[in-house]
Amino acid sequence: MNPHPPILAFDIFGTVVDWHGSIVRELQTLYPQVDADAFALAWRASYQPAMQRVRSGELGWTLIDALHRLTLEELLPRFGLAHLDQEQRRHLSRVWHRLDPWPDTLAGLTRLKQRHTICTLSNGNLGLLTNMAKRAGLPWDCVLSAEVFRAYKPDPRTYLGVAQVFDVPPDQVMLVAAHQDDLAAARACGLATAYIERALEFGAARPKDVSPDAANTWHARDLLHLADLLGC
Amino acid sequence: MNPHPPILAFDIFGTVVDWHGSIVRELQTLYPQVDADAFALAWRASYQPAMQRVRSGELGWTLIDALHRLTLEELLPRFGLAHLDQEQRRHLSRVWHRLDPWPDTLAGLTRLKQRHTICTLSNGNLGLLTNMAKRAGLPWDCVLSAEVFRAYKPDPRTYLGVAQVFDVPPDQVMLVAAHQDDLAAARACGLATAYIERALEFGAARPKDVSPDAANTWHARDLLHLADLLGC
Repeated sequence: MNPHPPILAFDIFGTVVDWHGSIVRELQTLYPQVDADAFALAWRASYQPAMQRVRSGELGWTLIDALHRLTLEELLPRFGLAHLDQEQRRHLSRVWHRLDPWPDTLAGLTRLKQRHTICTLSNGNLGLLTNMAKRAGLPWDCVLSAEVFRAYKPDPRTYLGVAQVFDVPPDQVMLVAAHQDDLAAARACGLATAYIERALEFGAARPKDVSPDAANTWHARDLLHLADLLGC
Repeated sequence: MNPHPPILAFDIFGTVVDWHGSIVRELQTLYPQVDADAFALAWRASYQPAMQRVRSGELGWTLIDALHRLTLEELLPRFGLAHLDQEQRRHLSRVWHRLDPWPDTLAGLTRLKQRHTICTLSNGNLGLLTNMAKRAGLPWDCVLSAEVFRAYKPDPRTYLGVAQVFDVPPDQVMLVAAHQDDLAAARACGLATAYIERALEFGAARPKDVSPDAANTWHARDLLHLADLLGC
């Protein structure tokens, strides 16, 4: 296992950007009557089951934009927002394009980029990831997505797909993520792994367990700490 | 037709980077005994026939890196380089990752990026395009390639694929290219088109016809001129 692989592939939702805080802030502005914290958590909770419908074959290949719209439709009546028109629904469903980075993200990526190729490896679609990067100033060398590999993480085609894109062995790629299950699946494919603590991913009221797993190549508090660890 | 579409998709070889000059310079350094100009022209001339073998189904889906290696193998004996070992062959075949931008490219892209989403749309593979961008400092918002769509330009799936990635109608995308056939195929799919003169694409000894075609949305001397025309 190479502890300094040249290619760093980043999980996005929760690792690079703060989905919970961003959605709460936007809802509080647009629809202050809604319990924004509960809405954000319920929306995110519907994410894995929606992808599972694709993985299982119940749905054909479907992009995350469409899955976010589908799950939003189910949430709106539960939160008193059944009156939203089509344009309002489309705008809200695309809040995932407008997520804000964590405070360390831009400086961390900028340092890591000096010695590594940095790319996304997200289940989010290419358009979403590109719009997000452009708005937030995320300096990716390349935007990769489940959309490129037509398979959702944790399918091995996604992790091994990054190695194939760059024509390197799997251990020359490191997945950087705030989720141990994502990292475990990458490790099973031979990738190096870096865990990033994001204790407040689910909001300040619900601090997450960020205990180290010795199976990861690195354990970092945030992306600046990862840059320190990698000597960037 | 929107004359200022939000998405600009760039052809790469010849439009953004100078393949002829870059290959000539590298060959003159590595193998000064070779006729570098003839070598570069012969290699590039083998590019379309190699892709045609994929388009026709004679070869399965094959990345440009592999096609460049395949065509290089045919060239080496013709130019007195049959003695190159495997590592030398691999290094030379990847000169396409190390092409230099035209003098206006970086400043032009930087200006265009302020008001537009700028992406590649090249038959070159994602790894090649990412390595090229990182080396040269090309500030893409997103790297798109025939590899994503599993079809080579001028297949409509490539041009329409860009519109689908960004979830916009085709006329919200403009192809920027130095080749009229590429632009004509994009236009047939409903994209806007910008022709970039690259009179010296085939070297100073072989100036190219750069006459305007009134069918294009824009005709620009270079990328700085295109930025002027688009008000960037």
